[in-house]
Amino acid sequence: MITAAKNDNDWLNPGESFDDLTRDGLKVIQSKDGYRFALDSVLLSHFLSVHPREKVVDLGCGCGVMSLLLASREPTLFITGIDIQQDMADRARRSVSYNRMEHRIAIRCQDLKDTEQFDGAHYDAVISNPPYEPLGHGRISHSREIALARHELACNMEDLFKTAANVLRPQGRIAVVYPARRLAEAMRIAAGQQLEPKRLQLIYPAEDKEANLFLLEAVRQGKPGLKVLKPLIVYSSPQQYSRDIMDIYFN
Amino acid sequence: MITAAKNDNDWLNPGESFDDLTRDGLKVIQSKDGYRFALDSVLLSHFLSVHPREKVVDLGCGCGVMSLLLASREPTLFITGIDIQQDMADRARRSVSYNRMEHRIAIRCQDLKDTEQFDGAHYDAVISNPPYEPLGHGRISHSREIALARHELACNMEDLFKTAANVLRPQGRIAVVYPARRLAEAMRIAAGQQLEPKRLQLIYPAEDKEANLFLLEAVRQGKPGLKVLKPLIVYSSPQQYSRDIMDIYFN
Repeated sequence: MITAAKNDNDWLNPGESFDDLTRDGLKVIQSKDGYRFALDSVLLSHFLSVHPREKVVDLGCGCGVMSLLLASREPTLFITGIDIQQDMADRARRSVSYNRMEHRIAIRCQDLKDTEQFDGAHYDAVISNPPYEPLGHGRISHSREIALARHELACNMEDLFKTAANVLRPQGRIAVVYPARRLAEAMRIAAGQQLEPKRLQLIYPAEDKEANLFLLEAVRQGKPGLKVLKPLIVYSSPQQYSRDIMDIYFN
Repeated sequence: MITAAKNDNDWLNPGESFDDLTRDGLKVIQSKDGYRFALDSVLLSHFLSVHPREKVVDLGCGCGVMSLLLASREPTLFITGIDIQQDMADRARRSVSYNRMEHRIAIRCQDLKDTEQFDGAHYDAVISNPPYEPLGHGRISHSREIALARHELACNMEDLFKTAANVLRPQGRIAVVYPARRLAEAMRIAAGQQLEPKRLQLIYPAEDKEANLFLLEAVRQGKPGLKVLKPLIVYSSPQQYSRDIMDIYFN
Protein backbone atom coordinates (compact mmCIF):
# COMPACT_ATOMS: atom_id res chain seq x y z
CA MET A 1 0.00 0.00 0.00
CA ILE A 2 2.74 2.45 0.93
CA THR A 3 4.60 1.63 -2.31
CA ALA A 4 1.51 2.20 -4.43
CA ALA A 5 0.83 5.53 -2.75
CA LYS A 6 4.44 6.58 -3.38
CA ASN A 7 4.20 5.69 -7.05
CA ASP A 8 0.99 7.69 -7.45
CA ASN A 9 2.61 10.71 -5.86
CA ASP A 10 5.34 10.64 -8.48
CA TRP A 11 2.71 11.75 -10.99
CA LEU A 12 1.73 14.84 -9.03
CA ASN A 13 3.10 18.38 -8.94
CA PRO A 14 2.85 20.38 -5.72
CA GLY A 15 -0.74 21.41 -4.99
CA GLU A 16 -2.25 18.59 -7.02
CA SER A 17 -4.24 15.52 -6.03
CA PHE A 18 -5.68 12.42 -7.64
CA ASP A 19 -9.44 12.12 -7.72
CA ASP A 20 -11.27 8.88 -8.29
CA LEU A 21 -13.72 8.71 -11.22
CA THR A 22 -15.55 5.68 -9.73
CA ARG A 23 -15.29 3.94 -13.09
CA ASP A 24 -12.75 1.33 -14.25
CA GLY A 25 -10.34 2.49 -11.53
CA LEU A 26 -9.82 5.76 -13.41
CA LYS A 27 -8.14 8.62 -11.59
CA VAL A 28 -7.72 12.20 -12.65
CA ILE A 29 -5.13 14.73 -11.53
CA GLN A 30 -6.53 18.05 -10.36
CA SER A 31 -5.22 21.19 -8.72
CA LYS A 32 -6.40 21.30 -5.12
CA ASP A 33 -7.11 25.04 -5.29
CA GLY A 34 -7.89 25.42 -8.98
CA TYR A 35 -10.88 24.55 -11.11
CA ARG A 36 -12.20 21.09 -10.24
CA PHE A 37 -14.65 19.01 -12.24
CA ALA A 38 -18.17 18.49 -11.00
CA LEU A 39 -21.27 16.44 -11.68
CA ASP A 40 -22.00 18.30 -14.93
CA SER A 41 -18.96 16.75 -16.65
CA VAL A 42 -19.98 13.28 -15.57
CA LEU A 43 -23.53 13.77 -16.85
CA LEU A 44 -22.39 15.20 -20.18
CA SER A 45 -19.92 12.34 -20.79
CA HIS A 46 -22.80 9.96 -20.27
CA PHE A 47 -25.19 11.97 -22.46
CA LEU A 48 -23.25 12.25 -25.74
CA SER A 49 -24.28 9.63 -28.30
CA VAL A 50 -21.21 7.72 -29.47
CA HIS A 51 -20.57 4.89 -31.88
CA PRO A 52 -17.56 2.56 -32.16
CA ARG A 53 -14.35 3.95 -33.69
CA GLU A 54 -15.56 7.53 -33.83
CA LYS A 55 -13.26 10.53 -33.55
CA VAL A 56 -14.31 12.90 -30.79
CA VAL A 57 -12.88 16.25 -29.75
CA ASP A 58 -13.29 17.58 -26.21
CA LEU A 59 -13.20 21.38 -26.54
CA GLY A 60 -11.83 22.97 -23.37
CA CYS A 61 -11.04 19.61 -21.83
CA GLY A 62 -9.69 20.98 -18.53
CA CYS A 63 -8.29 18.14 -16.43
CA GLY A 64 -9.50 15.66 -19.05
CA VAL A 65 -12.29 14.13 -17.02
CA MET A 66 -14.76 13.85 -19.92
CA SER A 67 -12.16 12.46 -22.32
CA LEU A 68 -11.31 9.76 -19.77
CA LEU A 69 -14.93 8.90 -19.05
CA LEU A 70 -15.77 8.70 -22.76
CA ALA A 71 -12.78 6.49 -23.48
CA SER A 72 -13.92 4.21 -20.69
CA ARG A 73 -17.53 4.13 -21.95
CA GLU A 74 -16.54 3.23 -25.50
CA PRO A 75 -13.01 1.83 -25.79
CA THR A 76 -12.80 2.15 -29.58
CA LEU A 77 -13.15 5.94 -29.63
CA PHE A 78 -10.24 8.19 -30.45
CA ILE A 79 -10.46 11.40 -28.45
CA THR A 80 -8.60 14.66 -28.78
CA GLY A 81 -8.78 16.94 -25.76
CA ILE A 82 -7.76 20.54 -26.20
CA ASP A 83 -7.40 23.26 -23.63
CA ILE A 84 -6.09 26.81 -23.83
CA GLN A 85 -4.41 26.56 -20.41
CA GLN A 86 -0.95 25.01 -20.33
CA ASP A 87 -1.31 23.79 -16.73
CA MET A 88 -4.64 22.14 -17.48
CA ALA A 89 -3.37 20.47 -20.64
CA ASP A 90 -0.31 19.25 -18.75
CA ARG A 91 -2.41 17.72 -15.99
CA ALA A 92 -4.77 16.15 -18.51
CA ARG A 93 -1.78 14.64 -20.35
CA ARG A 94 -0.40 13.14 -17.14
CA SER A 95 -3.84 11.76 -16.24
CA VAL A 96 -4.08 10.13 -19.66
CA SER A 97 -0.65 8.56 -19.20
CA TYR A 98 -1.41 7.46 -15.64
CA ASN A 99 -4.55 5.69 -16.89
CA ARG A 100 -2.60 4.23 -19.86
CA MET A 101 -4.83 5.82 -22.45
CA GLU A 102 -2.17 7.53 -24.62
CA HIS A 103 -3.20 5.45 -27.63
CA ARG A 104 -6.83 6.56 -27.28
CA ILE A 105 -6.62 10.14 -26.03
CA ALA A 106 -4.40 12.96 -27.31
CA ILE A 107 -4.20 16.20 -25.34
CA ARG A 108 -3.22 19.45 -27.04
CA CYS A 109 -2.77 22.92 -25.64
CA GLN A 110 -4.43 25.32 -28.04
CA ASP A 111 -7.12 27.98 -28.37
CA LEU A 112 -10.30 26.39 -29.71
CA LYS A 113 -10.97 29.56 -31.70
CA ASP A 114 -7.91 28.87 -33.89
CA THR A 115 -9.76 26.55 -36.22
CA GLU A 116 -6.82 26.46 -38.64
CA GLN A 117 -4.97 24.34 -36.14
CA PHE A 118 -7.59 21.64 -36.54
CA ASP A 119 -6.15 21.16 -40.00
CA GLY A 120 -9.38 20.39 -41.85
CA ALA A 121 -10.34 17.72 -39.33
CA HIS A 122 -13.74 16.12 -39.62
CA TYR A 123 -14.75 14.90 -36.20
CA ASP A 124 -17.75 12.70 -35.62
CA ALA A 125 -18.53 14.42 -32.37
CA VAL A 126 -17.66 17.42 -30.24
CA ILE A 127 -18.13 17.46 -26.49
CA SER A 128 -17.70 20.56 -24.38
CA ASN A 129 -18.30 21.66 -20.82
CA PRO A 130 -17.69 25.33 -21.52
CA PRO A 131 -17.51 28.44 -19.35
CA TYR A 132 -21.06 29.04 -18.08
CA GLU A 133 -21.06 32.76 -17.39
CA PRO A 134 -21.16 35.60 -19.90
CA LEU A 135 -19.02 38.60 -19.02
CA GLY A 136 -20.92 40.87 -16.67
CA HIS A 137 -22.68 37.94 -14.99
CA GLY A 138 -21.25 37.07 -11.57
CA ARG A 139 -17.90 37.89 -9.99
CA ILE A 140 -14.82 36.84 -11.91
CA SER A 141 -12.48 34.66 -9.84
CA HIS A 142 -9.04 35.97 -8.87
CA SER A 143 -7.68 32.57 -9.88
CA ARG A 144 -6.90 32.78 -13.58
CA GLU A 145 -7.55 29.05 -13.92
CA ILE A 146 -10.99 29.25 -12.34
CA ALA A 147 -11.84 32.50 -14.12
CA LEU A 148 -11.13 31.02 -17.58
CA ALA A 149 -13.12 27.89 -16.79
CA ARG A 150 -16.15 29.77 -15.43
CA HIS A 151 -16.40 32.99 -17.41
CA GLU A 152 -16.45 33.57 -21.15
CA LEU A 153 -13.09 35.33 -21.12
CA ALA A 154 -11.29 33.21 -23.70
CA CYS A 155 -14.28 31.75 -25.52
CA ASN A 156 -18.02 32.40 -25.59
CA MET A 157 -20.95 30.28 -26.72
CA GLU A 158 -20.83 31.65 -30.24
CA ASP A 159 -17.08 30.85 -30.56
CA LEU A 160 -17.71 27.32 -29.36
CA PHE A 161 -20.58 26.56 -31.74
CA LYS A 162 -18.70 28.17 -34.62
CA THR A 163 -15.66 25.98 -34.05
CA ALA A 164 -17.88 22.92 -33.65
CA ALA A 165 -19.58 23.64 -36.96
CA ASN A 166 -16.13 23.99 -38.53
CA VAL A 167 -14.65 20.76 -37.27
CA LEU A 168 -17.68 18.45 -37.44
CA ARG A 169 -18.45 16.32 -40.45
CA PRO A 170 -22.00 16.74 -41.81
CA GLN A 171 -24.38 14.89 -39.44
CA GLY A 172 -21.68 15.04 -36.75
CA ARG A 173 -22.86 15.83 -33.21
CA ILE A 174 -22.02 18.38 -30.55
CA ALA A 175 -23.03 17.88 -26.93
CA VAL A 176 -22.83 20.72 -24.44
CA VAL A 177 -23.96 21.54 -20.92
CA TYR A 178 -25.03 25.07 -19.95
CA PRO A 179 -27.14 26.77 -17.30
CA ALA A 180 -30.85 26.36 -18.04
CA ARG A 181 -31.31 30.12 -18.28
CA ARG A 182 -29.18 30.08 -21.47
CA LEU A 183 -31.28 27.50 -23.32
CA ALA A 184 -33.01 29.90 -25.70
CA GLU A 185 -29.70 31.60 -26.48
CA ALA A 186 -28.05 28.23 -27.16
CA MET A 187 -30.78 27.20 -29.58
CA ARG A 188 -30.53 30.53 -31.38
CA ILE A 189 -26.75 30.40 -31.68
CA ALA A 190 -26.80 26.73 -32.72
CA ALA A 191 -29.31 27.57 -35.46
CA GLY A 192 -26.98 30.29 -36.76
CA GLN A 193 -24.29 27.63 -37.24
CA GLN A 194 -26.62 25.05 -38.83
CA LEU A 195 -26.42 22.91 -35.72
CA GLU A 196 -29.88 21.43 -35.24
CA PRO A 197 -30.91 20.56 -31.64
CA LYS A 198 -31.89 16.88 -31.60
CA ARG A 199 -31.67 15.71 -27.95
CA LEU A 200 -32.26 17.77 -24.84
CA GLN A 201 -32.29 16.82 -21.19
CA LEU A 202 -33.15 19.20 -18.39
CA ILE A 203 -31.38 18.73 -15.09
CA TYR A 204 -33.43 19.52 -12.01
CA PRO A 205 -31.74 19.60 -8.57
CA ALA A 206 -34.90 18.01 -7.16
CA GLU A 207 -38.29 17.06 -8.57
CA ASP A 208 -39.95 20.23 -7.26
CA LYS A 209 -37.15 22.61 -8.29
CA GLU A 210 -36.49 24.67 -11.40
CA ALA A 211 -33.97 23.21 -13.82
CA ASN A 212 -30.47 24.58 -13.30
CA LEU A 213 -28.68 22.97 -16.25
CA PHE A 214 -29.40 21.44 -19.61
CA LEU A 215 -27.63 18.86 -21.75
CA LEU A 216 -28.06 19.47 -25.47
CA GLU A 217 -26.97 17.48 -28.48
CA ALA A 218 -27.17 19.16 -31.87
CA VAL A 219 -26.43 17.69 -35.28
CA ARG A 220 -24.60 19.57 -38.01
CA GLN A 221 -27.08 20.07 -40.87
CA GLY A 222 -29.57 17.82 -39.07
CA LYS A 223 -33.28 17.80 -39.78
CA PRO A 224 -35.57 19.63 -37.32
CA GLY A 225 -37.19 17.53 -34.58
CA LEU A 226 -36.14 17.50 -30.95
CA LYS A 227 -36.32 14.69 -28.45
CA VAL A 228 -36.67 15.90 -24.85
CA LEU A 229 -35.43 13.08 -22.64
CA LYS A 230 -36.97 12.23 -19.27
CA PRO A 231 -36.24 14.75 -16.52
CA LEU A 232 -32.93 14.15 -14.81
CA ILE A 233 -33.52 14.70 -11.10
CA VAL A 234 -30.27 14.98 -9.12
CA TYR A 235 -31.45 14.50 -5.54
CA SER A 236 -34.34 12.25 -4.58
CA SER A 237 -34.17 13.65 -1.05
CA PRO A 238 -31.74 16.09 0.59
CA GLN A 239 -28.22 14.60 0.44
CA GLN A 240 -29.44 11.49 -1.38
CA TYR A 241 -28.59 11.18 -5.07
CA SER A 242 -31.42 9.86 -7.22
CA ARG A 243 -31.33 6.41 -8.72
CA ASP A 244 -30.59 7.92 -12.16
CA ILE A 245 -27.52 9.74 -10.87
CA MET A 246 -26.25 6.65 -9.05
CA ASP A 247 -26.69 4.64 -12.25
CA ILE A 248 -24.69 7.18 -14.23
CA TYR A 249 -21.91 7.29 -11.65
CA PHE A 250 -21.56 3.56 -11.18
CA ASN A 251 -22.51 2.04 -14.55
CA MET B 1 -83.53 18.88 -11.95
CA ILE B 2 -85.66 18.24 -15.03
CA THR B 3 -86.27 21.97 -15.47
CA ALA B 4 -82.56 22.80 -15.16
CA ALA B 5 -81.65 20.14 -17.66
CA LYS B 6 -84.20 21.52 -20.09
CA ASN B 7 -82.85 25.04 -19.70
CA ASP B 8 -79.29 23.90 -20.34
CA ASN B 9 -80.40 22.06 -23.44
CA ASP B 10 -81.84 25.29 -24.84
CA TRP B 11 -78.27 26.49 -25.29
CA LEU B 12 -77.23 23.54 -27.41
CA ASN B 13 -77.47 22.88 -31.13
CA PRO B 14 -77.83 19.30 -32.36
CA GLY B 15 -74.65 17.27 -31.85
CA GLU B 16 -73.38 19.50 -29.02
CA SER B 17 -72.91 18.86 -25.32
CA PHE B 18 -71.96 20.77 -22.20
CA ASP B 19 -68.69 19.83 -20.55
CA ASP B 20 -67.78 20.71 -17.00
CA LEU B 21 -64.58 22.71 -16.42
CA THR B 22 -64.42 21.67 -12.72
CA ARG B 23 -63.92 25.32 -11.76
CA ASP B 24 -66.48 27.83 -10.50
CA GLY B 25 -69.24 25.71 -12.02
CA LEU B 26 -68.08 26.69 -15.52
CA LYS B 27 -69.41 24.74 -18.46
CA VAL B 28 -68.34 24.83 -22.06
CA ILE B 29 -70.30 23.85 -25.17
CA GLN B 30 -68.53 21.44 -27.49
CA SER B 31 -69.40 19.45 -30.57
CA LYS B 32 -69.67 15.77 -29.67
CA ASP B 33 -67.87 14.68 -32.85
CA GLY B 34 -65.69 17.73 -33.49
CA TYR B 35 -62.52 19.04 -31.94
CA ARG B 36 -62.68 18.79 -28.14
CA PHE B 37 -60.39 20.50 -25.65
CA ALA B 38 -57.87 18.48 -23.66
CA LEU B 39 -55.47 18.78 -20.74
CA ASP B 40 -53.07 21.02 -22.71
CA SER B 41 -55.57 23.90 -22.69
CA VAL B 42 -56.11 23.59 -18.96
CA LEU B 43 -52.34 23.60 -18.31
CA LEU B 44 -51.70 26.57 -20.57
CA SER B 45 -54.49 28.65 -18.97
CA HIS B 46 -52.85 28.00 -15.64
CA PHE B 47 -49.34 28.74 -16.95
CA LEU B 48 -49.75 32.22 -18.45
CA SER B 49 -48.66 35.02 -16.09
CA VAL B 50 -51.49 37.50 -15.65
CA HIS B 51 -51.99 40.68 -13.68
CA PRO B 52 -55.21 42.46 -12.72
CA ARG B 53 -57.07 44.42 -15.41
CA GLU B 54 -54.92 43.20 -18.28
CA LYS B 55 -56.17 42.79 -21.83
CA VAL B 56 -55.57 39.30 -23.16
CA VAL B 57 -56.24 37.82 -26.59
CA ASP B 58 -56.82 34.10 -27.11
CA LEU B 59 -55.68 33.36 -30.67
CA GLY B 60 -57.60 30.42 -32.10
CA CYS B 61 -59.84 30.18 -29.07
CA GLY B 62 -61.83 27.16 -30.27
CA CYS B 63 -64.68 26.45 -27.86
CA GLY B 64 -63.37 29.20 -25.57
CA VAL B 65 -62.11 26.93 -22.81
CA MET B 66 -58.94 28.95 -22.12
CA SER B 67 -60.74 32.28 -22.19
CA LEU B 68 -63.23 30.97 -19.63
CA LEU B 69 -60.56 29.48 -17.38
CA LEU B 70 -58.48 32.67 -17.49
CA ALA B 71 -61.50 34.83 -16.69
CA SER B 72 -62.20 32.60 -13.74
CA ARG B 73 -58.58 32.70 -12.53
CA GLU B 74 -58.37 36.49 -12.66
CA PRO B 75 -61.80 38.17 -12.71
CA THR B 76 -60.49 41.62 -13.68
CA LEU B 77 -59.05 40.51 -17.04
CA PHE B 78 -60.64 41.48 -20.32
CA ILE B 79 -60.27 38.69 -22.83
CA THR B 80 -60.84 38.62 -26.57
CA GLY B 81 -61.13 35.17 -28.10
CA ILE B 82 -60.83 34.87 -31.85
CA ASP B 83 -61.31 31.87 -34.06
CA ILE B 84 -61.35 31.43 -37.82
CA GLN B 85 -64.17 28.87 -37.65
CA GLN B 86 -67.68 30.23 -37.52
CA ASP B 87 -69.08 27.19 -35.69
CA MET B 88 -66.34 27.36 -33.06
CA ALA B 89 -66.79 31.08 -32.51
CA ASP B 90 -70.53 30.61 -32.24
CA ARG B 91 -70.16 27.88 -29.60
CA ALA B 92 -67.61 29.94 -27.69
CA ARG B 93 -69.98 32.92 -27.71
CA ARG B 94 -72.83 30.80 -26.35
CA SER B 95 -70.55 29.36 -23.66
CA VAL B 96 -69.53 32.87 -22.63
CA SER B 97 -73.20 33.90 -22.39
CA TYR B 98 -74.18 30.75 -20.53
CA ASN B 99 -71.46 31.44 -17.94
CA ARG B 100 -72.49 35.14 -17.81
CA MET B 101 -69.08 36.40 -18.85
CA GLU B 102 -70.13 38.67 -21.74
CA HIS B 103 -68.72 41.72 -19.95
CA ARG B 104 -65.32 40.03 -19.58
CA ILE B 105 -64.93 37.96 -22.73
CA ALA B 106 -65.59 38.99 -26.33
CA ILE B 107 -65.55 36.35 -29.06
CA ARG B 108 -64.83 37.26 -32.66
CA CYS B 109 -64.74 35.13 -35.78
CA GLN B 110 -61.67 36.17 -37.73
CA ASP B 111 -58.42 34.97 -39.22
CA LEU B 112 -55.57 35.70 -36.82
CA LYS B 113 -53.32 36.43 -39.78
CA ASP B 114 -55.42 39.53 -40.64
CA THR B 115 -53.60 41.75 -38.19
CA GLU B 116 -55.33 44.86 -39.58
CA GLN B 117 -58.50 43.69 -37.90
CA PHE B 118 -56.80 44.05 -34.54
CA ASP B 119 -56.96 47.76 -35.17
CA GLY B 120 -53.64 48.74 -33.59
CA ALA B 121 -54.51 46.91 -30.37
CA HIS B 122 -51.84 46.64 -27.73
CA TYR B 123 -52.58 43.56 -25.70
CA ASP B 124 -50.79 42.75 -22.47
CA ALA B 125 -50.82 39.08 -23.25
CA VAL B 126 -51.51 36.55 -25.97
CA ILE B 127 -52.48 32.97 -25.23
CA SER B 128 -52.74 30.30 -27.88
CA ASN B 129 -53.19 26.56 -28.10
CA PRO B 130 -52.40 26.35 -31.81
CA PRO B 131 -52.44 23.55 -34.37
CA TYR B 132 -49.61 21.17 -33.40
CA GLU B 133 -48.78 19.50 -36.68
CA PRO B 134 -46.96 20.97 -39.66
CA LEU B 135 -48.30 19.95 -43.05
CA GLY B 136 -46.85 16.61 -44.05
CA HIS B 137 -46.77 15.38 -40.46
CA GLY B 138 -49.54 12.92 -39.62
CA ARG B 139 -52.84 12.24 -41.34
CA ILE B 140 -55.14 15.20 -41.85
CA SER B 141 -58.61 14.61 -40.38
CA HIS B 142 -61.61 14.35 -42.71
CA SER B 143 -63.45 16.61 -40.26
CA ARG B 144 -62.69 20.17 -41.33
CA GLU B 145 -63.08 21.34 -37.73
CA ILE B 146 -60.57 18.82 -36.39
CA ALA B 147 -58.20 19.30 -39.33
CA LEU B 148 -57.98 23.07 -38.80
CA ALA B 149 -57.42 22.64 -35.06
CA ARG B 150 -54.72 19.99 -35.44
CA HIS B 151 -52.82 20.84 -38.62
CA GLU B 152 -51.22 24.06 -39.73
CA LEU B 153 -53.68 24.54 -42.58
CA ALA B 154 -54.94 28.01 -41.72
CA CYS B 155 -52.04 29.21 -39.56
CA ASN B 156 -48.54 28.00 -38.79
CA MET B 157 -46.15 28.77 -35.95
CA GLU B 158 -44.56 31.65 -37.80
CA ASP B 159 -47.96 33.25 -38.51
CA LEU B 160 -48.88 32.95 -34.86
CA PHE B 161 -45.70 34.52 -33.48
CA LYS B 162 -45.80 37.24 -36.12
CA THR B 163 -49.34 38.22 -35.15
CA ALA B 164 -48.43 38.05 -31.46
CA ALA B 165 -45.48 40.39 -32.02
CA ASN B 166 -47.83 42.74 -33.88
CA VAL B 167 -50.56 42.93 -31.28
CA LEU B 168 -48.50 42.82 -28.06
CA ARG B 169 -47.33 45.94 -26.29
CA PRO B 170 -43.58 46.04 -25.58
CA GLN B 171 -42.91 43.69 -22.64
CA GLY B 172 -46.23 41.98 -23.35
CA ARG B 173 -46.27 38.18 -23.07
CA ILE B 174 -47.25 35.29 -25.28
CA ALA B 175 -47.86 31.82 -23.86
CA VAL B 176 -48.14 28.81 -26.14
CA VAL B 177 -48.20 25.03 -25.91
CA TYR B 178 -46.58 22.85 -28.58
CA PRO B 179 -45.20 19.32 -28.95
CA ALA B 180 -41.78 19.04 -27.30
CA ARG B 181 -40.17 18.08 -30.61
CA ARG B 182 -40.89 21.62 -31.88
CA LEU B 183 -39.12 23.43 -29.03
CA ALA B 184 -35.99 24.42 -30.97
CA GLU B 185 -38.12 25.62 -33.87
CA ALA B 186 -40.31 27.67 -31.52
CA MET B 187 -37.31 29.39 -29.96
CA ARG B 188 -35.90 30.17 -33.38
CA ILE B 189 -39.16 31.58 -34.72
CA ALA B 190 -39.79 33.54 -31.51
CA ALA B 191 -36.32 35.09 -31.79
CA GLY B 192 -37.09 36.19 -35.34
CA GLN B 193 -40.07 38.16 -33.97
CA GLN B 194 -38.19 39.66 -31.01
CA LEU B 195 -40.15 37.46 -28.64
CA GLU B 196 -37.71 36.43 -25.92
CA PRO B 197 -38.38 33.09 -24.17
CA LYS B 198 -38.62 33.78 -20.42
CA ARG B 199 -40.50 30.84 -18.86
CA LEU B 200 -40.52 27.24 -20.02
CA GLN B 201 -42.13 24.16 -18.55
CA LEU B 202 -41.70 20.70 -19.98
CA ILE B 203 -44.64 18.31 -19.64
CA TYR B 204 -43.72 14.67 -19.11
CA PRO B 205 -46.48 12.00 -19.27
CA ALA B 206 -44.67 10.23 -16.41
CA GLU B 207 -41.43 10.78 -14.52
CA ASP B 208 -39.54 8.21 -16.60
CA LYS B 209 -40.94 9.32 -19.96
CA GLU B 210 -39.75 11.78 -22.59
CA ALA B 211 -41.50 15.16 -22.58
CA ASN B 212 -44.38 15.30 -25.05
CA LEU B 213 -45.35 18.98 -24.71
CA PHE B 214 -43.90 22.28 -23.58
CA LEU B 215 -45.43 25.46 -22.22
CA LEU B 216 -43.49 28.56 -23.24
CA GLU B 217 -43.91 32.20 -22.28
CA ALA B 218 -42.00 34.76 -24.30
CA VAL B 219 -41.81 38.52 -23.78
CA ARG B 220 -41.86 41.02 -26.62
CA GLN B 221 -38.49 42.77 -26.60
CA GLY B 222 -37.62 41.03 -23.33
CA LYS B 223 -34.09 40.60 -22.07
CA PRO B 224 -32.45 37.17 -22.48
CA GLY B 225 -32.64 34.79 -19.53
CA LEU B 226 -34.92 31.78 -19.32
CA LYS B 227 -36.51 30.21 -16.26
CA VAL B 228 -37.18 26.48 -16.67
CA LEU B 229 -39.91 25.61 -14.19
CA LYS B 230 -40.03 22.32 -12.31
CA PRO B 231 -40.97 19.32 -14.45
CA LEU B 232 -44.70 18.89 -14.84
CA ILE B 233 -45.40 15.17 -14.54
CA VAL B 234 -48.91 14.23 -15.67
CA TYR B 235 -49.33 10.74 -14.23
CA SER B 236 -47.79 9.64 -10.93
CA SER B 237 -48.85 6.07 -11.72
CA PRO B 238 -50.88 4.60 -14.58
CA GLN B 239 -54.37 6.17 -14.56
CA GLN B 240 -53.52 8.34 -11.55
CA TYR B 241 -53.01 12.07 -12.18
CA SER B 242 -50.10 13.58 -10.27
CA ARG B 243 -50.65 15.94 -7.39
CA ASP B 244 -49.58 18.89 -9.60
CA ILE B 245 -52.21 18.08 -12.20
CA MET B 246 -54.90 17.66 -9.55
CA ASP B 247 -53.95 21.01 -8.06
CA ILE B 248 -54.22 22.71 -11.44
CA TYR B 249 -57.60 21.13 -12.16
CA PHE B 250 -59.18 21.84 -8.81
CA ASN B 251 -57.54 25.04 -7.60
